[in-house]
Amino acid sequence: MGRLNHSFPVTRVRVDEQGVHTDTRGDLVSVEEPLELRVDGTTFSTTMRTPGHDIELVHGFLHGEGLIHEAADVSTARYCAGATGPDGMNTYNLLEVDLAQGVPTPGPELIRLTTTTSACGVCGTSSIDQIMRRSDHPLKQVALDPRVVLSLPGQLRKQQLQFRRTGGLHAAGAFTLAGDPIVVREDVGRHNAADKVIGALLLDDRLPADDLILVVSSRASFELVQKAVTAGFGAMVAVSAASSLAIELAEEAGLALTGFTRDNHFNLYAGQLAT
Amino acid sequence: MGRLNHSFPVTRVRVDEQGVHTDTRGDLVSVEEPLELRVDGTTFSTTMRTPGHDIELVHGFLHGEGLIHEAADVSTARYCAGATGPDGMNTYNLLEVDLAQGVPTPGPELIRLTTTTSACGVCGTSSIDQIMRRSDHPLKQVALDPRVVLSLPGQLRKQQLQFRRTGGLHAAGAFTLAGDPIVVREDVGRHNAADKVIGALLLDDRLPADDLILVVSSRASFELVQKAVTAGFGAMVAVSAASSLAIELAEEAGLALTGFTRDNHFNLYAGQLAT
Repeated sequence: MGRLNHSFPVTRVRVDEQGVHTDTRGDLVSVEEPLELRVDGTTFSTTMRTPGHDIELVHGFLHGEGLIHEAADVSTARYCAGATGPDGMNTYNLLEVDLAQGVPTPGPELIRLTTTTSACGVCGTSSIDQIMRRSDHPLKQVALDPRVVLSLPGQLRKQQLQFRRTGGLHAAGAFTLAGDPIVVREDVGRHNAADKVIGALLLDDRLPADDLILVVSSRASFELVQKAVTAGFGAMVAVSAASSLAIELAEEAGLALTGFTRDNHFNLYAGQLAT
Repeated sequence: MGRLNHSFPVTRVRVDEQGVHTDTRGDLVSVEEPLELRVDGTTFSTTMRTPGHDIELVHGFLHGEGLIHEAADVSTARYCAGATGPDGMNTYNLLEVDLAQGVPTPGPELIRLTTTTSACGVCGTSSIDQIMRRSDHPLKQVALDPRVVLSLPGQLRKQQLQFRRTGGLHAAGAFTLAGDPIVVREDVGRHNAADKVIGALLLDDRLPADDLILVVSSRASFELVQKAVTAGFGAMVAVSAASSLAIELAEEAGLALTGFTRDNHFNLYAGQLAT
């Protein structure tokens, strides 16, 4: 037991013909804690996340917001020394990032924008335009091997250590077009899991990820497709449904996109299959 | 077809021993569009949501943020007349709310706070304190009938019209302790679905909802429990897992909380069963 999961007394209740059966015992639960991110001394955002890989998380998040483009754009990233909880211990819930010289500090205007759900404009079209401008490299069009696509949700699940313990975490992973795993991360928030993966790739100088597939254990929301496009992924594979705006953005950006990727079938919403 | 779902050409791909089979046809997809909310003339938040029940959504959201406490706290709520898309039609994606006289207009400080993921503080304890202060009525402790609890996910699903069409929506619903549905709402975002339900109850003068159960098709995140507590629900039933901070808040607030509510069993994380 650590900071990723926590044991709580839980009453398991089962109802059958004989009646109601209860059994109370300790059960592992996924930890969810707020992470406050300060950039150049000012609070930039606060997000609920599963502790762990926080450095990757903030790199991925700042990349998605267009503030940094490579690892060198951050001079230091560290937990705030003075952030102590009631027990006098560091909470590890306050992370301070200093941007490198020459990288603009976000002004109040940007802070407002980025905290209002990833800077989306009023209508879908203007949002997509905005993202296309921010994505500083055209995506390489990839052709998906259907058998590889179908193998990815299972591979993602296999690497979800915490999910197996608590059943309560989303996951995201970067895989090669041949289906080999590069990095898999878990979080109570699906956006955070993607940010952790993208941050790990950025720190490893692997962006743009145009030869990789982003796999997500959730649906393909607009925001997740936005993160995939901004990180330059060639394709995104989602276990659940895609939304309308997610499909429109994927098409516009040339991102191959699948949804309902389960058992022996999936929906291809954008992009091409390998022949 | 309307604004709740949209038809896209989708290639269904199936792989079996005979090879790869594809079939391209129109398929209904859940619509996701940004909603900008202006309060007293200033942009307060932008959220990705499924269009529909927007008035309820903003009432529920503003109640959760502690800005309004009853329907009379809003003098007018209307779509902005000048917000037109490329086709010259109103986008219905910009909603203007004017607060009633005597209800304080949120200042820049509050806008910052509320957009950073529901005003959570740096450590869990301070977040919980903050919510307990904002919740202006103690919750009534309710005793849950296990058979009613087990019936709720199925009832919620039965009322999910859009989910049956697209497979891509979350739902939230308010039910009586006897299991009778009061209101069910769907959205691509699970927080929005809960906000729509809470807004509908507020507009119907049904808050605090201390004799009702909030049922959610997703996991019990900290933010959803926070919304349930602020609206004064007696209990919350989640189909998936609960997080650590969600359980801690439910216990502190006296909210009965279940998770993994499936088939003939569930986990009781906080609260009591009826005997």
